[in-house]
Amino acid sequence: MELGDRGYPIVIGSGLLDDADTIKTFVRNKLAYQQVCVVTNETIAPIYMEQLRSSLTGLQVETCILPDGEKYKNLDTLNQIFTCLLQTKFNRKACLVALGGGVVGDMTGFAAACYQRGIDFIQIPTTLLSQVDSSVGGKTGVNHVLGKNMIGAFKQPKSVVIDIDVLSTLPAAEFAAGMAEVIKYGLIWDQDFFTWLEQNAGALKALEPRALTFAIQKSCEIKAGIVAEDETEQGLRAILNLGHTFGHAIETHAGYGVWLHGQAVAVGMRMAIRMSNWLNESLGEELEARLVRLLEVFELPVYPPDGMNRDDFLTHMAVDKKNLNADIRLVLLDKLGQARVTSEYPMSTLNRLIDSFIGQS
Amino acid sequence: MELGDRGYPIVIGSGLLDDADTIKTFVRNKLAYQQVCVVTNETIAPIYMEQLRSSLTGLQVETCILPDGEKYKNLDTLNQIFTCLLQTKFNRKACLVALGGGVVGDMTGFAAACYQRGIDFIQIPTTLLSQVDSSVGGKTGVNHVLGKNMIGAFKQPKSVVIDIDVLSTLPAAEFAAGMAEVIKYGLIWDQDFFTWLEQNAGALKALEPRALTFAIQKSCEIKAGIVAEDETEQGLRAILNLGHTFGHAIETHAGYGVWLHGQAVAVGMRMAIRMSNWLNESLGEELEARLVRLLEVFELPVYPPDGMNRDDFLTHMAVDKKNLNADIRLVLLDKLGQARVTSEYPMSTLNRLIDSFIGQS
Repeated sequence: MELGDRGYPIVIGSGLLDDADTIKTFVRNKLAYQQVCVVTNETIAPIYMEQLRSSLTGLQVETCILPDGEKYKNLDTLNQIFTCLLQTKFNRKACLVALGGGVVGDMTGFAAACYQRGIDFIQIPTTLLSQVDSSVGGKTGVNHVLGKNMIGAFKQPKSVVIDIDVLSTLPAAEFAAGMAEVIKYGLIWDQDFFTWLEQNAGALKALEPRALTFAIQKSCEIKAGIVAEDETEQGLRAILNLGHTFGHAIETHAGYGVWLHGQAVAVGMRMAIRMSNWLNESLGEELEARLVRLLEVFELPVYPPDGMNRDDFLTHMAVDKKNLNADIRLVLLDKLGQARVTSEYPMSTLNRLIDSFIGQS
Repeated sequence: MELGDRGYPIVIGSGLLDDADTIKTFVRNKLAYQQVCVVTNETIAPIYMEQLRSSLTGLQVETCILPDGEKYKNLDTLNQIFTCLLQTKFNRKACLVALGGGVVGDMTGFAAACYQRGIDFIQIPTTLLSQVDSSVGGKTGVNHVLGKNMIGAFKQPKSVVIDIDVLSTLPAAEFAAGMAEVIKYGLIWDQDFFTWLEQNAGALKALEPRALTFAIQKSCEIKAGIVAEDETEQGLRAILNLGHTFGHAIETHAGYGVWLHGQAVAVGMRMAIRMSNWLNESLGEELEARLVRLLEVFELPVYPPDGMNRDDFLTHMAVDKKNLNADIRLVLLDKLGQARVTSEYPMSTLNRLIDSFIGQS
């Protein structure tokens, strides 16, 4: 990934966690860390920790095992990482390794950004969502009771190691949630990739390795390209948030962890596509229907939760980070594969859009 | 201060808090913030908050009042700042203003570094220590129960406004603690300034404005010059920690907040000077005596606390951030006005040094 002197390699393949050479290339030899702290959670540790540890022989390896779940993505859990590091007297030359999904990756990256004002870290994402989204781009952080991802830092990992084999132990709903983000890249950036996804949805759902590797690689490339042009989210990068403003509102309304992030984004993307078509009829109604068919292959939701009303949406959308002042900025499509961020739309259209989704599920 | 595009102005003078033009130049006009959150504490708020607020008319000004004291410099108190910002729906274009001493400045800067992954902040330091030390250089953070300043970020303020009038309400012990850092700048960087301090100690103790302004300006210049050469503390900047490794051990042993930082540094500098002389006799014994006389003018301590033993020192020194691996790196003087960082000394000399200070107070 190209970010000047903060660029880093992403390696994608099968059997990488068992491949001590690859692990050592990234953790041991190339970067010469002597102290490594693997941060993971109670679900992942029993499955993959020993495998990773066996690839790190010869280093001082400590493990910090966090509770599993978005509801633990907060400053208190972050502090557990600092406690692990301080108890073992890890210094500024230490390296953190995030072994887990987005929650582990976001917290580990933020801990690396803050521990002694900054140490290195490596991402080994174990969910499809984190492989194609949070492990690339350098956004790290924790939630606050008043808002998601409100506390954090931009911190790039030194490398990302993506082993597609880990997807075999991932619950189907979490795999689907990751696919929502994969589909997003097609929508905002690459219409050919969107078409490829329509044609290969079955192979992906069956975890066919070649299809998976291509989809993950393409997703990482698209995200990395966008991030490289706009590392600290001044402009372009905001298009990555297609469906996220609506999605965050759904997640917040439901309570952290009740809806998976990708599930909420799936609904949010559908809402954004309908809004895009209302504001720009050349987009066509067919795209929403194509998106719904694709989401349904992966059994992703296409309606917001029962009982969520217009005020619920608007209240939770107003603290979204993409806002400048009171406007609610949305990512909309001009056409398939091309997105833009705007707050230039009639509030009445937004209200009508939300209403069109209420009571439909 | 020169740090490429992260450089910022430092203005020093009398009556600045009452000077709406200056305040507005720095907060309102030049940087065009619309939302300002002044972070201060229970001690400072009643004395200076209304004065500052009257200079900020026309902006959305919120106040976040923290408990006063080093013991509150932790993640829980930091979270109070985030809660203030989220309750008032402050966005990424908001600006934090730190009105207070080093604790307020460090926490406000760290909050600014983390809130929505980074917003701007301005320092208005109200203690001599923070005016000459923490408000310049961009180190921000909080303590962990297992170590001081272990969690933080490098974050430069957009400007620093130093009103020397606030020193009239500062307790004498805190003024003295600030002088310890001023004296440090002479020791590590500028022998003429050290001599000037010896000659003007009485005027400084009497809060004579011209002497104060010169001493603060000189201190900020020296610190800014060193920081500009080494913003993220890879090398040179470590000389600013003269006396701090010993000092941190004293502070940690006594419990946060029992000894003032500058008081501990005063003792630590004396220890570092004696060690320097033992390792390099050309420095001469006279410098330690001159330092002790100068510290005593300001009624600063010159011995560690009763009952602190060698193990207490070594245990607490081992988690100091300046350490690489197990070595304890120390800042030592080659001569007055010239310092270096080293871990190349006999452990027996360090043990003997600590022993020479035990049971002396």
